[in-house]
Amino acid sequence: MPDDRFHVFDTTLRDGAQREGINLTVADKLAIAKLLDEFGVRFIEGGWPGANPRDTEFFERASNELTLQHAQLCAFGATRRSGVRAADDPQVAALRESGAPVVTLVAKSDTRHVERALRTSGEENLAMIADTVSHLREHGRRVFLDCEHFFDGYVHDSAYATNVVRTAAEAGADVVVLCDTNGGMLPADITRIVGEVAEATGVRLGIHAQDDSGCAVANTLAAVDAGATHVQCTANGYGERVGNANLFSVAGALALKQGRDVLPEGCLEQMTRVSQAIAEIVNISPATHQPYVGVSAFAHKAGLHASAIKVDPDLYQHIDPALVGNDMRMLVSDMAGRASIELKAKELGFDLSGDRELLGRVVDRVKELELSGYSFEAADASLELLLREELGRAVRYFDTESWRVIAERRGKGETPQDAAASEATVKLHVKGERVIATAEGNGPVNALDRALRSAMEGVYTALAGLELTDYKVRILEGNSGTGAVTRILVTFGDGRGEWTTVGVGENVIDASWIALEDALTYGLLRQGYPQD
Amino acid sequence: MPDDRFHVFDTTLRDGAQREGINLTVADKLAIAKLLDEFGVRFIEGGWPGANPRDTEFFERASNELTLQHAQLCAFGATRRSGVRAADDPQVAALRESGAPVVTLVAKSDTRHVERALRTSGEENLAMIADTVSHLREHGRRVFLDCEHFFDGYVHDSAYATNVVRTAAEAGADVVVLCDTNGGMLPADITRIVGEVAEATGVRLGIHAQDDSGCAVANTLAAVDAGATHVQCTANGYGERVGNANLFSVAGALALKQGRDVLPEGCLEQMTRVSQAIAEIVNISPATHQPYVGVSAFAHKAGLHASAIKVDPDLYQHIDPALVGNDMRMLVSDMAGRASIELKAKELGFDLSGDRELLGRVVDRVKELELSGYSFEAADASLELLLREELGRAVRYFDTESWRVIAERRGKGETPQDAAASEATVKLHVKGERVIATAEGNGPVNALDRALRSAMEGVYTALAGLELTDYKVRILEGNSGTGAVTRILVTFGDGRGEWTTVGVGENVIDASWIALEDALTYGLLRQGYPQD
Repeated sequence: MPDDRFHVFDTTLRDGAQREGINLTVADKLAIAKLLDEFGVRFIEGGWPGANPRDTEFFERASNELTLQHAQLCAFGATRRSGVRAADDPQVAALRESGAPVVTLVAKSDTRHVERALRTSGEENLAMIADTVSHLREHGRRVFLDCEHFFDGYVHDSAYATNVVRTAAEAGADVVVLCDTNGGMLPADITRIVGEVAEATGVRLGIHAQDDSGCAVANTLAAVDAGATHVQCTANGYGERVGNANLFSVAGALALKQGRDVLPEGCLEQMTRVSQAIAEIVNISPATHQPYVGVSAFAHKAGLHASAIKVDPDLYQHIDPALVGNDMRMLVSDMAGRASIELKAKELGFDLSGDRELLGRVVDRVKELELSGYSFEAADASLELLLREELGRAVRYFDTESWRVIAERRGKGETPQDAAASEATVKLHVKGERVIATAEGNGPVNALDRALRSAMEGVYTALAGLELTDYKVRILEGNSGTGAVTRILVTFGDGRGEWTTVGVGENVIDASWIALEDALTYGLLRQGYPQD
Repeated sequence: MPDDRFHVFDTTLRDGAQREGINLTVADKLAIAKLLDEFGVRFIEGGWPGANPRDTEFFERASNELTLQHAQLCAFGATRRSGVRAADDPQVAALRESGAPVVTLVAKSDTRHVERALRTSGEENLAMIADTVSHLREHGRRVFLDCEHFFDGYVHDSAYATNVVRTAAEAGADVVVLCDTNGGMLPADITRIVGEVAEATGVRLGIHAQDDSGCAVANTLAAVDAGATHVQCTANGYGERVGNANLFSVAGALALKQGRDVLPEGCLEQMTRVSQAIAEIVNISPATHQPYVGVSAFAHKAGLHASAIKVDPDLYQHIDPALVGNDMRMLVSDMAGRASIELKAKELGFDLSGDRELLGRVVDRVKELELSGYSFEAADASLELLLREELGRAVRYFDTESWRVIAERRGKGETPQDAAASEATVKLHVKGERVIATAEGNGPVNALDRALRSAMEGVYTALAGLELTDYKVRILEGNSGTGAVTRILVTFGDGRGEWTTVGVGENVIDASWIALEDALTYGLLRQGYPQD
């Protein structure tokens, strides 16, 4: 269990929420805080109470609803306004009243910002810092001070920037956090400046790095190398503009590459799950190529690698993916060739190693389908159905004769006479019987799904227990003048697990139908139904 | 114009193509090579002729079809097989025959890989390197040698790894490239090891960094700081697993932060365009939050920043975005508050500064729509229509009474009797007349678009010149039990420019209709039609 000597400080709920496209409800923030606590961060910056009604509500609800095992909540706010006592500043009062035991105060440390954005004097800025920090200390709060634009300020006027650090520490700030607010620094700058400030002041330092140069993780590590003992990060690197230092990459490097005791035991393995769960909550597709946690982070495609991995997986991985709750995957693509397909088939339970002709046929079929827009990399269930087909063990529970879907709308939904409707009719052959079924849905794909199930539910009763849990649409540009095609990935679950299938067609409904057919077929196979 | 003393070496077409989800045709590769040349890289690694028929064809066609202004083409390949003379190895012959003036050879430099993956002796590995390098030198090729797994190998057995570097240089390799193949290194490791190897051998060194630790850009810069003068990168960081060092971030740092002469004059400004064009070709949505080139890289959301930016944009940007062909943007979101909406409106040509009540109304309306799933961050045209409405200058060229779309399919498209069809009927009021039109399309949205235009083309003839150029679908999870909604972004062009609109609905067709209505309305406004 790490002690207070090193802080993993998360600001997903404050700085992360400033990423373009993120818009968090209070319920979202509570759910994310719980996940961050499960990952074992020591501090969770929850927002700016007083400045934003949602953040005020977050702190209110957190004190009743949130039970944290590892983390403490922090309130973020600014130093008092110029010319007002901290005790009389309503913004400072909101920080006190948030109930958070820790307050992170942001202060200017670049004289240009003091003059041009804050429009006050350097001297008054120092007084604002000293007054606000000591006021909050008097009220029993632990205080961290974020020096905004510290590095740019230090390059411009190192004496003043250093003075800000000293002033904050003397007033009682426990940690003074040096912020690369514009994200323009490179690691060598960070190492030098953090080292100089540590040397000059002896103050406990933290680092907050934005990723505008693509170096936020390295800059954070550079600061730690130079003596910082408090790192501010965000889950998946979410943040203003390009983003912040990625919590998972920073924690992975500190724990796995430098052997530092930064997370409680058992937490590192939660990394992949926590990363993906937070992505779901903020409603941004998980970054497939993110270090450590991405679904591609340990996915091997090159044929050269695939054949070597058959010998020893550690030769081509920087860490064991299980340490961070991730997995190695072999990708099926025309590049990978036979070795990858063979490994992938094995992963799915089929041994193709003895049959070179069969293996070649599968490789050719996959290549051909990928050329037309299919992608099996994420659709193991469709790939398994294809493998069974090539093995002469095709799975078929029904045959489609035709389907039709009608979607319509009257008016704009503004008056009671306005109406919307989606209706689908399917004609199938199930166990030798011709079946026709019609169903309504809240959209054309939903109507098709319902009609398809309703046509077969009498025969395959377990269909009622299958649920569509995810649906993804990708428009693929036709590069060779053939026009765009649509690729659909659908994920179904049956309470025991999930599976994903793929469909490609010239429009969204066509493609969805193909993916639905595969998804229900695979679902019935999982339930153990004997085939036609 | 940079001379030979520093190499920006691009491997998008070889290592980048190993990213999960990328599948390049020869035409794609030729188009990307042209773009990379426009960005001014010095070397373009085109692929592995001989190992892959597509790459062989690429080199054949490149010699006829590709005129390069700045770059030279490189062929990638391996050292000869164990126990065969380089002159007799068909893989080496394919490199010679590719016609590329430069060859990059990959060689093992980690004894564990030599023994376990290559299954030969350390001595034979050195002989393979010496023989293959000198053979290609005798045939007039310039040779770079990639030391695979160099850093892991050096940590394990520094003497052998160093020996590989020496052997390659002595045989005539111009640059020996140290590869962090598994991407597990941190910048401090790179600085130390590159420094030691440079010191021990005096050989010209290059760096090839994978991004598994999230430090590939910093690792590349660390190697340059330690003396490397050849950097291997990929456009947008595409590559195996997590990816490679991002060409644009590396070039940006070297040119703009270290003042190195690494790109020909006028090329740096092509960065954003080239990055986005390559993303289009490989068919991966451009990474919105990528440093320097992302659409969010200079997008400001926080209210605090927005008000300061009104004072001085340089206070919140690490570089002037124009230097890399990018732009500053203000984001419209409930977080940004009034200052951002005011700036955004100004960007669109509306001065709201004098009317606080109007500004408040717009902010409220935007908040409400964003809560229901809208996002105006990418849909300026929809935002402009909304602003006009709130200003009492609503644009309306037609009114929708109703629409209906029918999509159907018989069979699986395997026999001539199989058929697919999409048909849409719209009922509109245009300039006081009720119009009904029906059209077919290759999908429901295409049919709706055609029916909508056909209903109005008699009145608004310019509609024929508008073209749908992009269509994006996003399924938004309903976080509060309301079920998922669909958000559609459509982009239209009229030959003079493009505009994007947004629609949200409970299904893909509903949402598409709303976005189409806005898109055609905005298109008609651009053509200068007077309103009803």
